[in-house]
Amino acid sequence: MSHNVFGHLFRVTTFGESHGPAIGCVVDGCPPGLTLSIEDIQVFLDRRRPGQSRFTTQRQEADAVKILSGVLRDEARGVDVTTGTPIALLIENTDQRSNDYEAIKSVYRPGHADFTYDAKYGLRDHRGGGRSSARETAARVAAGAVARKIVADVVIRGALVQMGPHRIDRSHWDWEETQRNPFFCPDAKAAGFFETYLDKVRKEGSSVGAVIEIVAERVPAGWGAPLYGKLDAEIAAALMSINAVKGVEIGDGFAAAELSGEANADDMRRGNEAGPLFLSNHAGGILGGISTGQPIIARFAVKPTSSILQPRQTVDRNGTETEIATKGRHDPCVGIRAVPVGEAMLACVLADHFLRHRGQVGGQVGGQVGERPRWPFAT
Amino acid sequence: MSHNVFGHLFRVTTFGESHGPAIGCVVDGCPPGLTLSIEDIQVFLDRRRPGQSRFTTQRQEADAVKILSGVLRDEARGVDVTTGTPIALLIENTDQRSNDYEAIKSVYRPGHADFTYDAKYGLRDHRGGGRSSARETAARVAAGAVARKIVADVVIRGALVQMGPHRIDRSHWDWEETQRNPFFCPDAKAAGFFETYLDKVRKEGSSVGAVIEIVAERVPAGWGAPLYGKLDAEIAAALMSINAVKGVEIGDGFAAAELSGEANADDMRRGNEAGPLFLSNHAGGILGGISTGQPIIARFAVKPTSSILQPRQTVDRNGTETEIATKGRHDPCVGIRAVPVGEAMLACVLADHFLRHRGQVGGQVGGQVGERPRWPFAT
Amino acid sequence: MSHNVFGHLFRVTTFGESHGPAIGCVVDGCPPGLTLSIEDIQVFLDRRRPGQSRFTTQRQEADAVKILSGVLRDEARGVDVTTGTPIALLIENTDQRSNDYEAIKSVYRPGHADFTYDAKYGLRDHRGGGRSSARETAARVAAGAVARKIVADVVIRGALVQMGPHRIDRSHWDWEETQRNPFFCPDAKAAGFFETYLDKVRKEGSSVGAVIEIVAERVPAGWGAPLYGKLDAEIAAALMSINAVKGVEIGDGFAAAELSGEANADDMRRGNEAGPLFLSNHAGGILGGISTGQPIIARFAVKPTSSILQPRQTVDRNGTETEIATKGRHDPCVGIRAVPVGEAMLACVLADHFLRHRGQVGGQVGGQVGERPRWPFAT
Amino acid sequence: MSHNVFGHLFRVTTFGESHGPAIGCVVDGCPPGLTLSIEDIQVFLDRRRPGQSRFTTQRQEADAVKILSGVLRDEARGVDVTTGTPIALLIENTDQRSNDYEAIKSVYRPGHADFTYDAKYGLRDHRGGGRSSARETAARVAAGAVARKIVADVVIRGALVQMGPHRIDRSHWDWEETQRNPFFCPDAKAAGFFETYLDKVRKEGSSVGAVIEIVAERVPAGWGAPLYGKLDAEIAAALMSINAVKGVEIGDGFAAAELSGEANADDMRRGNEAGPLFLSNHAGGILGGISTGQPIIARFAVKPTSSILQPRQTVDRNGTETEIATKGRHDPCVGIRAVPVGEAMLACVLADHFLRHRGQVGGQVGGQVGERPRWPFAT
Repeated sequence: MSHNVFGHLFRVTTFGESHGPAIGCVVDGCPPGLTLSIEDIQVFLDRRRPGQSRFTTQRQEADAVKILSGVLRDEARGVDVTTGTPIALLIENTDQRSNDYEAIKSVYRPGHADFTYDAKYGLRDHRGGGRSSARETAARVAAGAVARKIVADVVIRGALVQMGPHRIDRSHWDWEETQRNPFFCPDAKAAGFFETYLDKVRKEGSSVGAVIEIVAERVPAGWGAPLYGKLDAEIAAALMSINAVKGVEIGDGFAAAELSGEANADDMRRGNEAGPLFLSNHAGGILGGISTGQPIIARFAVKPTSSILQPRQTVDRNGTETEIATKGRHDPCVGIRAVPVGEAMLACVLADHFLRHRGQVGGQVGGQVGERPRWPFAT
Repeated sequence: MSHNVFGHLFRVTTFGESHGPAIGCVVDGCPPGLTLSIEDIQVFLDRRRPGQSRFTTQRQEADAVKILSGVLRDEARGVDVTTGTPIALLIENTDQRSNDYEAIKSVYRPGHADFTYDAKYGLRDHRGGGRSSARETAARVAAGAVARKIVADVVIRGALVQMGPHRIDRSHWDWEETQRNPFFCPDAKAAGFFETYLDKVRKEGSSVGAVIEIVAERVPAGWGAPLYGKLDAEIAAALMSINAVKGVEIGDGFAAAELSGEANADDMRRGNEAGPLFLSNHAGGILGGISTGQPIIARFAVKPTSSILQPRQTVDRNGTETEIATKGRHDPCVGIRAVPVGEAMLACVLADHFLRHRGQVGGQVGGQVGERPRWPFAT
Repeated sequence: MSHNVFGHLFRVTTFGESHGPAIGCVVDGCPPGLTLSIEDIQVFLDRRRPGQSRFTTQRQEADAVKILSGVLRDEARGVDVTTGTPIALLIENTDQRSNDYEAIKSVYRPGHADFTYDAKYGLRDHRGGGRSSARETAARVAAGAVARKIVADVVIRGALVQMGPHRIDRSHWDWEETQRNPFFCPDAKAAGFFETYLDKVRKEGSSVGAVIEIVAERVPAGWGAPLYGKLDAEIAAALMSINAVKGVEIGDGFAAAELSGEANADDMRRGNEAGPLFLSNHAGGILGGISTGQPIIARFAVKPTSSILQPRQTVDRNGTETEIATKGRHDPCVGIRAVPVGEAMLACVLADHFLRHRGQVGGQVGGQVGERPRWPFAT
Repeated sequence: MSHNVFGHLFRVTTFGESHGPAIGCVVDGCPPGLTLSIEDIQVFLDRRRPGQSRFTTQRQEADAVKILSGVLRDEARGVDVTTGTPIALLIENTDQRSNDYEAIKSVYRPGHADFTYDAKYGLRDHRGGGRSSARETAARVAAGAVARKIVADVVIRGALVQMGPHRIDRSHWDWEETQRNPFFCPDAKAAGFFETYLDKVRKEGSSVGAVIEIVAERVPAGWGAPLYGKLDAEIAAALMSINAVKGVEIGDGFAAAELSGEANADDMRRGNEAGPLFLSNHAGGILGGISTGQPIIARFAVKPTSSILQPRQTVDRNGTETEIATKGRHDPCVGIRAVPVGEAMLACVLADHFLRHRGQVGGQVGGQVGERPRWPFAT
């Protein structure tokens, strides 16, 4: 990852600011021959789209994606397919209220990147955070939709597992439930509580953080590129690069530090042709930077939205001390909309690693690439 | 990061296995004219070197580094200086007992990368974990010593802040103390406790995890390359790529998710010419992927050593079910020696970002590069 | 360079096909604070634009560029400036006649990439060559206009020095003349001849190749990144990546092979503070992959346009033998419009190397970066 | 390519100076399971090794390579195989006569990188050219030997086709002959002439340039990564990065500029299941940056050795005017030993592109990767 590009063989470049004409991305390195329609992408953008409940910013953006390149009509099949050339995706900004930001043109909002962009570049786009706005994550979600096409067998799903100090009850976990509440929360009871809780937070002009969990199932054993392209290292970078994220865990994460060696070991049994049976998954599906064949489990912590109505002490670029209370339109819990973003980033990392693995190892060892390894290996 | 290379302008490639002839690295992109001696590197290797207390593996390795290229004698000054060309560093393996590993040639050790390397590559180097051995981290430490030369003004220090479930008392924090106990622990009292605790763990044939905190002070505001080369994203990848790491946090990390927006905001006051004064550092010195000028604070969780005397259930590569108890020589808490490794990785990331920042922005804006920004900006 | 991205710190990603909705590029890594307007870019696009004389394709494209991101209004100065974030540039395709290409949907045009795209991807966009169309070079020219802003002191100019077997008389060289004839030819007399010559070629339904020379003056000594990012190596890649290019030379190029060591040596005298005086420039301004301070001289050979009216033998994707004569609208000498493209590619390489040099070496040695080195070095 | 690293999936990092302790390389991304012995590498190093005839430098270097990592004994087969992890290769410098270079410590040799390294880095390793020495090419040859293992079906051979102004008679071409004369010349008669000619050049204390041609046969159609990782663009960079190279051509190269469109077209006929039959190969086996299935033909021009006995005018780093005649031990025609280096660079590019192609496209389209495409495509 560098500048505004990430990925090695499946490579995504994003562009655009909160209040410019458009945002978008170029997806390079996509295999040819995959069906890809606007709908395939739009469905994921719609999950991230603001203004869908009172718990997200009221900015109204259709987030309608256009495909500018990289697909071709296959007349015989009546579908559009990828050509193997760059797929440029464009999302126009439509509901911009730049004037909302005039007041903060020279004032730094604590918790935002206002001061740091100024310190780095000597100037900053103050309109909605400019490039540092969470609006950019729409481009990630669009790229993620393409990535999913490449690793079509893999099931990638995300869930909000904590809001503020309140954790869900994992015994209530129901993936279907994440489709039914505005929080992508897999615990129906917790979701009910979050509704009341977040209303209160919102009315107080405050905000709150969250923890998101992303799970990828059906990833074959063998993906990953040790030592510095380890699957977990690249997942960590991908998730940490999302706005407001302050921590990333794989499997048991920080809780693993508290375990003894015997408690942490994921014992193995013979299993079946799909792979050995692991008796637990403390490792979160990754050992030595390479997938084990178990579900890959990653979690990330999102800090509370920095834009709040409650006034904070700050300075302007002249060094004058002042205070600021953000008006604008904001999410009381920016972690909610991070769920589809986290899914997208994991999809991109996995697509990239699938291609990298296929490049280095091909179909010769570890089983036909794209399929489960032929286990046991030595028979 | 990809394969065995990391960094963009300051680029490190490592090589070598636990039981091959040697390990080492090539450090590319180092600025010219920096003094660099073997001693500059050896001092950090000695901190990571095994066999220094009963709490680390008894493998005896001198870890004596050789500089094969990239430095030149400056006769006038009587010092060696970097030339701007690749610096190759070599560490020979001397105390190899490969026979210790014959018994596990075909058996997978739970928690290790044995199965995954086999699943990926169709073969694996079973001798001490081969490439996946923590021995490789010596090469990282060597590279980190070079990186420190580039960001010489930055103070990078690490500390063990948790062992198993036991956290230090942060009010006891004393950096000097980390030089005095075998745990790099900044809390003298906790260090005393850890001694007893870890002896017990070791005698039980068990192992335990740890949490390490790395702090970089005197990093100027403005380093980082949003959006996908964010300073925190690359720190996350760098730390997660260390053996046995399962989680990474910046600043308050996962605890930030529990805060309200007003509790999390780091309020700002005018400060002095070194930069504005932040009234707190929940952000861990990074906002929007760019350094704030405050200390950069990163933490990572290390799982318990997977090699334990207590037998675990497993399979061999034929799928035959068996059990395994690792003999060999191992660290009861691999997290301890991760302290200098974490410091080295942070040093490498910072050196790379200093050069990248200087490349893009030069000395024109945000103050003379390498110095604190000229604050306030607009006066 | 990989896939559709090139450059290291100054990084360009292009997208788009000949007959898709749009082409464009994302320019990443641009320093902040540079003035950049649509006009700054359009002036170069207009030089490359087709349909300006009877010697280029009659496809009518306004090639009007839009800036989608990465610039901000500086109200005080009344100009737009770069922000340091990605600059997305979009050029819509307007004069597409895809039906012109129905006849060749399954037939391979010799000399084109039709067969190879099919062999690689299993499908191809037959409309005007799809991604392999020279239309993509408009995006390079747009990126080059941004690059010129970064190395504003460098003068980068190109000229057509050979058409078919006919070379210009270099003693007639007049840079101004390249602005006055439709061939970018610096020799007025040769330009007159080319007019008659190319009319004849065009009327015969044939085409002809060309040799283009690009010169960059005022590049300071010291740019380049040996050994695998050598300035000449990256110039070679950049120019060879242009459509229809089959050869690249630096300085004397292939003629250097015929020289003796003493004839090839560029003897040096003291010169002045701008640098030593070289008594000749056989090296083309680059030694050991690093600029000498002399003009950088690169030449590239463009093969004759493959789309010709004269029928050629070929096959279709079923293997059926047939013949083909390309109708469509084409340049009789595609080398002409390669002049602004070659300039743009050299500008991009130089901008990237300026930033990379500044990153590694800063302003400490070799003189203030961006200025001529302080020569002599040791006084 | 950047700094001292090249390749994308098959990635080579080289290090070392002419008069340091050792040179070498790290080959990253090699597929696992390939047999690889020291002999496999040494055979190519021996071809490049100096001191084998009176026509190359008399420096005596065994150039004995050591494999430090990345291979593992396969006891069952009695062979060493690659593990998929980095392969570090080391070649110690043994016959260094650094004192030969004391006289030129501060004096710039025209045609060498002496001045430019000083201008870039503010210092230089004067001993034998330091990093800019052709000695570094031994590391490329070693890496190339590994690359050949990956594309084992491809036949990569080089030949010297011109020395000074004297070209071989291509009708005499005999690949076997390149093994029989000290010039790698495929024309026995020309080789005889070169012997007399080069003796004369050598005795005069002069030197002479050369043109080298590298041919890769049995490359399947479809390798290459348009647009900026085009096969020809990366070959151009790879060859131009070799010491003293000033020009690169693919297929007809500069001669293509002189052809008409109909003369340049490589007409196609049905051929057989290995692919269509091309009636000529003006394109040199590459169209649109992708291989056609025909032989890939690349040529490069090597300038005359800059180190000559005849005195040249120059300056020292104080700007003092002086003259210089290089003593030391040098090749009168450095182009000769460039033949195995050119082969190695082409091998590395092809290995990288094979893996990249397999990564993006796999075995699904365009025929089983690694085999010829299934032609015709549509039946």
